[in-house]
Amino acid sequence: MPFTYDYPRPALAVDCVVFGLRESSLVVLLVRRGVPPFEGSWALPGGFVRLDETLDRAAERELVEESGLKVAYLEQLYTFSALDRDPRERVVSVAYFALVNPVEHRPQAGSDAASAAWFDVREAPALAFDHRHILQVALERLRSKVRYRPIGFGLLPERFSLTQLQRAYEIILDRPLDKRNFRKKIAALGFVVPTDALEEGVGRRAARLFRFDRAVYAALSEKGFDLELI
Amino acid sequence: MPFTYDYPRPALAVDCVVFGLRESSLVVLLVRRGVPPFEGSWALPGGFVRLDETLDRAAERELVEESGLKVAYLEQLYTFSALDRDPRERVVSVAYFALVNPVEHRPQAGSDAASAAWFDVREAPALAFDHRHILQVALERLRSKVRYRPIGFGLLPERFSLTQLQRAYEIILDRPLDKRNFRKKIAALGFVVPTDALEEGVGRRAARLFRFDRAVYAALSEKGFDLELI
Repeated sequence: MPFTYDYPRPALAVDCVVFGLRESSLVVLLVRRGVPPFEGSWALPGGFVRLDETLDRAAERELVEESGLKVAYLEQLYTFSALDRDPRERVVSVAYFALVNPVEHRPQAGSDAASAAWFDVREAPALAFDHRHILQVALERLRSKVRYRPIGFGLLPERFSLTQLQRAYEIILDRPLDKRNFRKKIAALGFVVPTDALEEGVGRRAARLFRFDRAVYAALSEKGFDLELI
Repeated sequence: MPFTYDYPRPALAVDCVVFGLRESSLVVLLVRRGVPPFEGSWALPGGFVRLDETLDRAAERELVEESGLKVAYLEQLYTFSALDRDPRERVVSVAYFALVNPVEHRPQAGSDAASAAWFDVREAPALAFDHRHILQVALERLRSKVRYRPIGFGLLPERFSLTQLQRAYEIILDRPLDKRNFRKKIAALGFVVPTDALEEGVGRRAARLFRFDRAVYAALSEKGFDLELI
């Protein structure tokens, strides 16, 4: 049954950029499209928004349907409206992004997706629509944001060594950091706190494990303290 | 002539939050609606997006049509999709924001707006739709962003004293700042540079005027330097 309106309007879609850290790489979740257009091409998980759901819910739903992935929090990134981004008709897409620990999430394709997998962001295949552009914008937002919000912690396990933490930032920022300066800044922040646990090490002194103290961070950010990490 | 689609889709709109500094207040541009719904109520300037324009262009166009205001740069803020934000039908709105010097812009109402004026953000009237919520989100984004991006400069004249600069930040952040710490930080930034000009003062030593050096800022931000202002 067709849907009729007095005024034309574009179709509205969501797309999800989900990043993770795997070994020494930043990876992104992609799906291989099982339906036209761009059938057989890789793309960001996503789809059209239903009339009875918000954009946040649409993003969560499409991600679960197409990859099996359920994330704690999807953040709205940007709304893309280039006139020719979709060959079918005018489609405006609201992109979301999230950070997860990929070891915990084995993608399970479904719905419009024929398969789903993690790709190193530097080695992503050709993508459908304007998804390469969306991915690039997401990467820039991640790199910019990681400097002043503790979002890097979403990519790490609950307990991590300072070396692991530094490595995570170096992988995200794609540049080396000075170890001493990094540790000085981390210590000054106040919300990266030591635990009783030690990392298992072979042939070297075992490293102390740390954790991100959300309560301390919340209190500090409310007071407007200088929270720049890098 | 009605427009028919295989799948339903919400209407798509843009809304603009334009801030300025006037005397000791942060002000926002509002329009009084000349058409239903909420006819006679104040609202953010905005309207429906056309099929042949991007969201950026729609935002610029609606702002000019409804208030006469042409701004250099409108930044996308967030896309609002609460199911009941508009009484007519499902409308998703992409909000934009900008910072201007209101002394230079006398609003000239037109199109769906019966009048247009600047309001102190603390004294805004009841607003149509979810515009009070959008305004609040814009205010939070402004306050958050002003700490690590030199956007406060868009609210000031080309040349300003450090007292004026500090006052601008205090008005935006709605809290007092320590003068000595502020001046120390500003000096350390590198992109607030003194000019030859002095402010005109009565009965006190004339203050040096400064300017925002965009070239220095661009070079520093490209290198990833620590640019936190406040």
